Amino acid sequence: MLMTELIAKKRDGGVLSEEEIRFMIDGYTRGEIPDYQMSAMLMAMYFRGLDHDETVAMTMAMMHSGDTIDLSAVTGVKADKHSTGGVGDKTSLVLCPMLAACGVKMAKMSGRGLGHTGGTIDKLESFPGFSCDMTTERFFENVNTVGFAIAAQTAEIDPADKKLYALRDVTGTVAVRGLIVSSIMSKKLAAGADTIVLDVKCGSGSFMKTEEEARLLAQEMVEVGNAAGRKTAAVITDMDKPLGNAVGNALEVREAISALKGEYAGDLLELCISIGSNILLQGGIAGSEAEARTMLRHTIEDGSALRKLAEFVDAQGGDSAAVYDPSLLPTAPVQYDVCSDVSGYVNRMNAEGIGLVSLHLGGGRATKESVIDPAVGVVLDKKAGDRVACGERLAVIHAASEEKAAEAAKLLRACYVITDEAPADVPFIKGVVR
Amino acid sequence: MLMTELIAKKRDGGVLSEEEIRFMIDGYTRGEIPDYQMSAMLMAMYFRGLDHDETVAMTMAMMHSGDTIDLSAVTGVKADKHSTGGVGDKTSLVLCPMLAACGVKMAKMSGRGLGHTGGTIDKLESFPGFSCDMTTERFFENVNTVGFAIAAQTAEIDPADKKLYALRDVTGTVAVRGLIVSSIMSKKLAAGADTIVLDVKCGSGSFMKTEEEARLLAQEMVEVGNAAGRKTAAVITDMDKPLGNAVGNALEVREAISALKGEYAGDLLELCISIGSNILLQGGIAGSEAEARTMLRHTIEDGSALRKLAEFVDAQGGDSAAVYDPSLLPTAPVQYDVCSDVSGYVNRMNAEGIGLVSLHLGGGRATKESVIDPAVGVVLDKKAGDRVACGERLAVIHAASEEKAAEAAKLLRACYVITDEAPADVPFIKGVVR
Repeated sequence: MLMTELIAKKRDGGVLSEEEIRFMIDGYTRGEIPDYQMSAMLMAMYFRGLDHDETVAMTMAMMHSGDTIDLSAVTGVKADKHSTGGVGDKTSLVLCPMLAACGVKMAKMSGRGLGHTGGTIDKLESFPGFSCDMTTERFFENVNTVGFAIAAQTAEIDPADKKLYALRDVTGTVAVRGLIVSSIMSKKLAAGADTIVLDVKCGSGSFMKTEEEARLLAQEMVEVGNAAGRKTAAVITDMDKPLGNAVGNALEVREAISALKGEYAGDLLELCISIGSNILLQGGIAGSEAEARTMLRHTIEDGSALRKLAEFVDAQGGDSAAVYDPSLLPTAPVQYDVCSDVSGYVNRMNAEGIGLVSLHLGGGRATKESVIDPAVGVVLDKKAGDRVACGERLAVIHAASEEKAAEAAKLLRACYVITDEAPADVPFIKGVVR
Repeated sequence: MLMTELIAKKRDGGVLSEEEIRFMIDGYTRGEIPDYQMSAMLMAMYFRGLDHDETVAMTMAMMHSGDTIDLSAVTGVKADKHSTGGVGDKTSLVLCPMLAACGVKMAKMSGRGLGHTGGTIDKLESFPGFSCDMTTERFFENVNTVGFAIAAQTAEIDPADKKLYALRDVTGTVAVRGLIVSSIMSKKLAAGADTIVLDVKCGSGSFMKTEEEARLLAQEMVEVGNAAGRKTAAVITDMDKPLGNAVGNALEVREAISALKGEYAGDLLELCISIGSNILLQGGIAGSEAEARTMLRHTIEDGSALRKLAEFVDAQGGDSAAVYDPSLLPTAPVQYDVCSDVSGYVNRMNAEGIGLVSLHLGGGRATKESVIDPAVGVVLDKKAGDRVACGERLAVIHAASEEKAAEAAKLLRACYVITDEAPADVPFIKGVVR
């Protein structure tokens, strides 16, 4: 088999067999197939697409390109969730404690953030002493005792995806549905959970611009997950505004704590309840969606979810005192109000732009080597759909200096589109694919 | 400007500007744009094509990626010809002496062969002592005194094409018209001639499968040449059979000498007269096609073309005695007849297969490092359209051993399709594009 022949086959509209896809992924992972041939293949896939069988074969070949996690040492329902990425997305910080309080086990692999979206690990490192480095034994032990643990994804898991993703990023071949599906699902399958719920974002700030595209992506991921023998569902959510109100590492941890204390009700909690109830249903822990929602809300009311977060932070070397007293978390020296110069409605907002404001403040990584300032970021008072009076506060910027705050304020103001008309009311959760 | 943006632009059906193409070709030549980005671009070009302006811009950017030859030291009409490649193509060996005898100057850059088609330099090296290595001063001096000289193409001419061609070859992106045009024309323009005639092959053994595709390619090359201020024309020829009867280095030199002696009349001579008359017309040396043809035929009748070949061989260090006595050329120890086992007509023949027979005999390079045996090859008695009786000879194999000859005979026999029906009579020269 020759890679040149496979490129020509895909280029001419042919369907690659499972064997051909395995040859290609194995050869590429081992470095026997060079980047320049793979990028030609990726561009041919951009134009020709991948059918269902090709997508399944890609997913399985990538999953088996490295280590897979064996969760047989973990008892009970082993769940995982994945989000296609969004600004202000701190879902894991809220959802994992709630599910742990319901008896679900989550052995999560997570990444660090790059660009305008933050990584869960970066957020958790706001807790003094917290670390995601631990032995495999300790990882499983924490999952069994606390209910969840979060480790940094290692290079040994799905190395094919790491190489492919880096290549797609610089060759204009990111937006190919079959490649997005196989990239996400190969990692999720390698991580070993038996119950998976995906959060598929759609909207202007996402790869999937329309609800239709997002639904097709969600359907394909669910089909691939089920084909691999895992119970899989997907929630389709709107990504035209940041999730919750906080953007920035310690600020997002504070918001997650508020949510677990019952002090917050908004899209963040709505999403956690939606994903969580699907996991409880699929895992057979709840008999109906109503029951699942009640169980999840109860973990907030009785404080069990908050206690799970504290247990988790302790188990990974952090200081859980900050869970009960968030003033112990890093705090920026400057708080700077951004106010509206007009009255009207926030008609829409640039979520990606707000992520970039946090990045410029030092809250994200511009390059892999960047050092993050956990304290900085933005807390929004107003989001799309809200009414705002002239002079009223839109957001507070948390910055290392007045100068940086003033710069960020200008950028942030430009992310708000304020008009006389209220925007159409669009549902935040657009549907569930099972 | 970022290469990722240019890839996305072409991928989405955009038209690259001259500046963008120059940025891309310069960056790629210097190694600042990596192969994996260029191959994604090439595949996007495969699907989206290049328009006329893009093709001109690619050609000019590639031409200027390295040295260009200044022929101002050469007096008179400076011509060049190029063939898109074919089995048994020894046109330059016949055409250059004929044109030199008519006063045309040709400063030719040529390559060595790889795969099933031989290179002109490999053929010329059948003359004992012949070399294509010489100083630039000597090269121009030979062009001025003899009328033509042939030098090996240096790495300094069109380095962008060398890198791009190697990449296209292994990424399924050879068959893109705009890329074929710019590859050929950038080299021809860099070589400095003011009068260019192209031989565009079409047929099963060529990239251009149909006459229509060949005509589009020819038209585009002619337009690009004229846009660059060079008088350009193209002859479209059939490539369903080898050109002439000999395939193999010294065997092809013998056939070229026969043609120059007036002992041969066939497709090879027809092609040389067609290309040559176009050059004489474009250069203003002949006033009409009839006059041009007469002038060319006259160079054979009066022996002036044969004397030019001898002068040329002498000027490049070879022994010109072999021009007058071809038995001084390398001769294979074994001559092996391949006869037909049926009667009928040669309905069609696999020209590429015959090239491969010569390659297997040792007459071509399987890899860049292969050493060529100049003596071996095939001389065809019968070509497509010929009648053959059972037992009659189809061809003679010239081999280093009986064993190799017997192997080659089997392969060669399979290249002939003999049927009861005569094939339709197709014209060898299908048209001229000016």
